[in-house]
Amino acid sequence: MIMSRIEAPRDEETGNLVDRLLSGLPTEVVLTDPDVTASYANDMASFCPAGSPAVVVLPRTVEEVQHVMRTATDLRVPVVPQGARTGLSGGANASDGCIVLSLTKMDRILEINPVDRIAVVEPGVINATLSRAVNEKGLYYPPDPSSWEMCTIGGNIGTASGGLCCVKYGVTAEYVLGLDVVLADGRLMSTGRRTAKGVAGYDLTRLFVGSEGSLGIVVRAILGLRPQPPAQLVLAAEFASGAAACDAVCRIMEGGHVPSLLELMDRTTVKAVNDLAHMGLPETTEALLLAAFDTHDPAADLAALGALCEAAGATQVVPAEDLAESELLLQARRLSLTALEAVKGTTMIDDVCVPRSRLAELLEGTERIAEKYQLTIGVVAHAGDGNTHPTVCFDAADPDECRRARESFDEIMALGLELGGTITGEHGVGVLKKEWLAREIGPVGLEMQRAVKAAFDPLGILNPGKLF
Amino acid sequence: MIMSRIEAPRDEETGNLVDRLLSGLPTEVVLTDPDVTASYANDMASFCPAGSPAVVVLPRTVEEVQHVMRTATDLRVPVVPQGARTGLSGGANASDGCIVLSLTKMDRILEINPVDRIAVVEPGVINATLSRAVNEKGLYYPPDPSSWEMCTIGGNIGTASGGLCCVKYGVTAEYVLGLDVVLADGRLMSTGRRTAKGVAGYDLTRLFVGSEGSLGIVVRAILGLRPQPPAQLVLAAEFASGAAACDAVCRIMEGGHVPSLLELMDRTTVKAVNDLAHMGLPETTEALLLAAFDTHDPAADLAALGALCEAAGATQVVPAEDLAESELLLQARRLSLTALEAVKGTTMIDDVCVPRSRLAELLEGTERIAEKYQLTIGVVAHAGDGNTHPTVCFDAADPDECRRARESFDEIMALGLELGGTITGEHGVGVLKKEWLAREIGPVGLEMQRAVKAAFDPLGILNPGKLF
Repeated sequence: MIMSRIEAPRDEETGNLVDRLLSGLPTEVVLTDPDVTASYANDMASFCPAGSPAVVVLPRTVEEVQHVMRTATDLRVPVVPQGARTGLSGGANASDGCIVLSLTKMDRILEINPVDRIAVVEPGVINATLSRAVNEKGLYYPPDPSSWEMCTIGGNIGTASGGLCCVKYGVTAEYVLGLDVVLADGRLMSTGRRTAKGVAGYDLTRLFVGSEGSLGIVVRAILGLRPQPPAQLVLAAEFASGAAACDAVCRIMEGGHVPSLLELMDRTTVKAVNDLAHMGLPETTEALLLAAFDTHDPAADLAALGALCEAAGATQVVPAEDLAESELLLQARRLSLTALEAVKGTTMIDDVCVPRSRLAELLEGTERIAEKYQLTIGVVAHAGDGNTHPTVCFDAADPDECRRARESFDEIMALGLELGGTITGEHGVGVLKKEWLAREIGPVGLEMQRAVKAAFDPLGILNPGKLF
Repeated sequence: MIMSRIEAPRDEETGNLVDRLLSGLPTEVVLTDPDVTASYANDMASFCPAGSPAVVVLPRTVEEVQHVMRTATDLRVPVVPQGARTGLSGGANASDGCIVLSLTKMDRILEINPVDRIAVVEPGVINATLSRAVNEKGLYYPPDPSSWEMCTIGGNIGTASGGLCCVKYGVTAEYVLGLDVVLADGRLMSTGRRTAKGVAGYDLTRLFVGSEGSLGIVVRAILGLRPQPPAQLVLAAEFASGAAACDAVCRIMEGGHVPSLLELMDRTTVKAVNDLAHMGLPETTEALLLAAFDTHDPAADLAALGALCEAAGATQVVPAEDLAESELLLQARRLSLTALEAVKGTTMIDDVCVPRSRLAELLEGTERIAEKYQLTIGVVAHAGDGNTHPTVCFDAADPDECRRARESFDEIMALGLELGGTITGEHGVGVLKKEWLAREIGPVGLEMQRAVKAAFDPLGILNPGKLF
């Protein structure tokens, strides 16, 4: 195994490492204070081991990144690339003695081009910053993970992030046209294009998207943009069962509708949001479906969708009266994970995606699992994508509850695979789901994934211990 | 170099190869008659050398493909996978002594699922067959290469084909969710998913799309579908110069419009189409722009677009009166390459894609190149994508004209690169553009592409001599 070559360094080694780094970097970008470096140890995932970084580097230029990677290659030191560390799978967690390479200071938007509909950015740009900047030019960068106010484009590329928009606009991968990447040995490689189309050679751009920093360091990205659509109007539909809500989802998709958002919150989630933010959501409903259109006549489109919800047994269908009311419903949805975290102090957030025709089975199964383990599991889902986030709420101070949380979390993944789904729709594998990746893709797939890794990172220094 | 290991086999070797193949295949799927095998030697590209296949195999099952690949690995025989051989880069051309692996008989549509919006198909399914089958269920498979009535989905995946739809709906790559692939050594690997989203591990699915059969044999594909949009209404706009037409394209895209088609035909192409099919297109125009919308109110959208054309100097803007007239305009466009072929008997079709903001420069440069080489070069373009097909018309019996054709073809690629574009928007690299791929992606990119190739095909038996 690649990992076994890398051991925790001795202090002398750390000194040597820092000296070598400083030989090509300004002092202020190299952090060595153990209290400071420790604060870069992990992302937002529960149950993921993290080591102590030897040093944290915050480069501002491509050349500085190249110097870091050359040094790491020379000294065989692992490098863990990081964005805003909002990830939920431990993909950005430090290994002992590693260089943490935080790209947060490379945060310039280099170009926004409305004719070519592209933006060129550095990896540390915050998702929301880019979204707002392109909005000002009448353009739209769709990917909108829940953490969009904090997370970076580089991190989004690393995990191929999704969000609420995906049912209509797809995931981050759909918007990455070209990349500049610093390879493990410090060489700079450009992939892809700034054109609308291009098929010159293997699609290495797409290979890097979702590779969780394990193949190279993204230092620049060419992103595709869309014209800004009209503001979306939201509808809320209440259902007496999760199955009925899922039936509505299937009818909507089978009916050829293309909503800009199709989200589900179960009763547990609705109650948690009310408890946290007093939103006045209907607590008697078993499942709340939120749907939206950003078309030119969203009210008409919502009416047709509402009729399908009623046909599927919705007990109440309430279209938002205006954009303000729409925004309020979206806020409720965006608060879901935070609200569920407040239930018991800690959560584990599953990310199972199933074919949407199997969504009801996943919901039913999750309920069974919650009962079996005597745990609160709230389900919030990008229902239109079949991408669910069953969120296990537990008390991290209670060892038995922790054990049950982890087991139930795993059992939901097993159920997802049984239903023809995947263990991760948008959060990535990281440390948390390594064993599960192997289970999902099988031994041949795993071997070929490792072969690709070895082709780009023969020394195994790039984010070791993640994915595999 | 990988290629150098492979030599043309002696007859005895061919006998042995055929025996080994027959040990695991029904007799009728193995073709050895030299007249027959010779007919599988090449695709539709000009100027691409092709060797003589030792044998042609037309497998009907995954197991048969596995047997072929195991045999090829054991005997170190190159394998050239083929679809309908409508490719334009020599990517399906045989090497001497190779096994041609024609996937055309694996042509079953295995599933069409309107709720999950996916189709599961074998690689030999004809694009048009799939398109019509999903239409019947209210669904839409967008990729529509000009050869859609003949070309196979497997071939489309191999070259990441585009078509007229791309300006709104993207290329084949956007629609490939998962693959079953037989690897060089005969093992079966599944990649990707049948869910709307999924980020479990590296995106090997996308790596195979556009890999021109050089990494493995696609034996099954899970394809994403969309709901069938309304029929599109087309508008024709005439311009007194290519530059004015390109200006209109830029205004349309900058204005936030999303036409379902935005095509350009230059005067040479318009005249060629009239000569071939007497379509009565306006021959006095220097550039004809065709635009379409498949929205709920296409007439209104076309009116807005027409106004932008007029602002850019269109001399005439004619919206189609109805769907029949729209279809006629599309037919004219679809006939373009055939019509240009009729001009001098042979064509070389460039596939340069530039940022659409540079489209006018590409058109002007192509005109200069045509003049320099004293050749007729008709330009037909997916203008909305910046993807142009400058088509060099020449007499294949005239050696000097052949030389000039090849040189002008190359010079157009050089111009495309200068303008920040790519040598291939949708036709692939094949044999025709090998040197140009190296030029476009540079030495580091090329080295990493080769490393990926070596990871999947260490013996170099899969479609050798293509791409690199």
